[in-house]
Amino acid sequence: MGRRLVERLDAHDVVGIDTVADGVPQQSHVETVCGDLCDPAVLEHAFAGGCDAVIHLATVPGGAAEQNPELARRVNVEATMALARQASLAGNVPRFVFASSIAVFGDPLPDNVDDSTPLAPKMYYGAHKAMMEEWLATMTRRGELSGVSLRLSGVVARPSGPSGMKFAFMSDVFHAMQAGKNFVLPVSENATSWLTSVECAAQNFVHSLVTQADPTQRVYALTLPAIRVRMADLVNEIARQTGYDLDRIDYQPDAALEAAFGNQPPLSTRTADALGYSSDGSLEALVGRALAEN
Amino acid sequence: MGRRLVERLDAHDVVGIDTVADGVPQQSHVETVCGDLCDPAVLEHAFAGGCDAVIHLATVPGGAAEQNPELARRVNVEATMALARQASLAGNVPRFVFASSIAVFGDPLPDNVDDSTPLAPKMYYGAHKAMMEEWLATMTRRGELSGVSLRLSGVVARPSGPSGMKFAFMSDVFHAMQAGKNFVLPVSENATSWLTSVECAAQNFVHSLVTQADPTQRVYALTLPAIRVRMADLVNEIARQTGYDLDRIDYQPDAALEAAFGNQPPLSTRTADALGYSSDGSLEALVGRALAEN
Repeated sequence: MGRRLVERLDAHDVVGIDTVADGVPQQSHVETVCGDLCDPAVLEHAFAGGCDAVIHLATVPGGAAEQNPELARRVNVEATMALARQASLAGNVPRFVFASSIAVFGDPLPDNVDDSTPLAPKMYYGAHKAMMEEWLATMTRRGELSGVSLRLSGVVARPSGPSGMKFAFMSDVFHAMQAGKNFVLPVSENATSWLTSVECAAQNFVHSLVTQADPTQRVYALTLPAIRVRMADLVNEIARQTGYDLDRIDYQPDAALEAAFGNQPPLSTRTADALGYSSDGSLEALVGRALAEN
Repeated sequence: MGRRLVERLDAHDVVGIDTVADGVPQQSHVETVCGDLCDPAVLEHAFAGGCDAVIHLATVPGGAAEQNPELARRVNVEATMALARQASLAGNVPRFVFASSIAVFGDPLPDNVDDSTPLAPKMYYGAHKAMMEEWLATMTRRGELSGVSLRLSGVVARPSGPSGMKFAFMSDVFHAMQAGKNFVLPVSENATSWLTSVECAAQNFVHSLVTQADPTQRVYALTLPAIRVRMADLVNEIARQTGYDLDRIDYQPDAALEAAFGNQPPLSTRTADALGYSSDGSLEALVGRALAEN
């Protein structure tokens, strides 16, 4: 996601912060700062040239945060607060776009999710995101930042390999089917999930840099549009686009994963829709973009 | 407040944590742990004997947090999270009662405040409280704690002297009138504020130790009942009970303080009422209890 954003923002001077040197694309408009967001020297270096806007993607995600709550707290809470503070000091009410998550809603979800659904996180990760939404809203009310938290649904297809995400199977099924390999899905055929392609999510982040709600009706956090997909329909569409043999797919539902990711109800995102954010539009487009990632 | 609670809880083994050794009353049922909540060794020592319940009062309050946001973050966020974690590890789903604040509502307040009023903190202090409400609710949903956040209104009369509280004038007026001294109020005669006596607040904290809402309708945070007082009415009642000469009072409203503390609208606390929490009941009782503090 960060890579895609850096490429899209090629009309701007971009500072890319990552813990690994090759995490940031080497392009002429990009300066790479390699280091830990928890390190004040890294932030000082990153903001030395001032700050018009920040897109904050770095996180210890769901599964990893459950395994290491202390690390997750440092990255998801402390480093986020330090980043926001340094951005505020380095800029003139800079835009601050925060990658939040539908994990703020917790589980089980109500029969419908919309812009009035109360936050009720259950994972540490979701609680950290909800806390940072509150913090960035406060900084925005104070005029220290122009913050907005964008709640992402499941993003496909993320790179394969260990990610610390419990939801990784949803990306792995794309990789496996594209490679013609057998795959066991840990949810049922009828599991329903909210999905967005990396491309669509990146477009929404770029959009957030130029979109400000009417300040008198300020929107501090919103749920991004997503496509609600039934697992069997997703698999069928991937097979249609890749020529994959469906006999290679097996469903072995895991009760915990089904509860956490396979019971996502109809989703309404009116606030985001009105502000010009969008989903991939169709299952076909979602799958096409996700397959094009690889 | 802590002192009052320690005295009330004399049928229990109490560990009192304070940064100063004489902060905790020396009584046979009390062990004092003197140290910084941010220090893991202090928490380890405090919980060495297990944990049935925690009442967490320590905080860097409004004005002090504005002056030193970094210290406030460490105490109000980090130490609170560490305390909750250690309590959870030391006990079997221990009760965790958190002193939150009406500062979570921010300012200006809506025309009425009730249990559906959205949180919109403006002070760092209020944001920290809102974030911790979210965190403790998450730990409670996970079964790690039995948490409840009690939002306190202005507590009178706190000890005189520097407290870091912007609201200190509301306690200082009691001390000055009781001592027969002149006093200048930084709000207008028509300023309206929500108040509770230390005694009433302590009763509510003790009540919270034995009160659990129906778990299927779990209440994670609630606004405590308070008396809504017009400043001139408060001053008249203090004068009536102390024989103070009202000519010694002068009103010199400060716009910021009036906005932050003098425009508190009618307050409904149905959730707290239904769970048996209470206010002082009358202005007369509030003033009587506050004067008895000294």
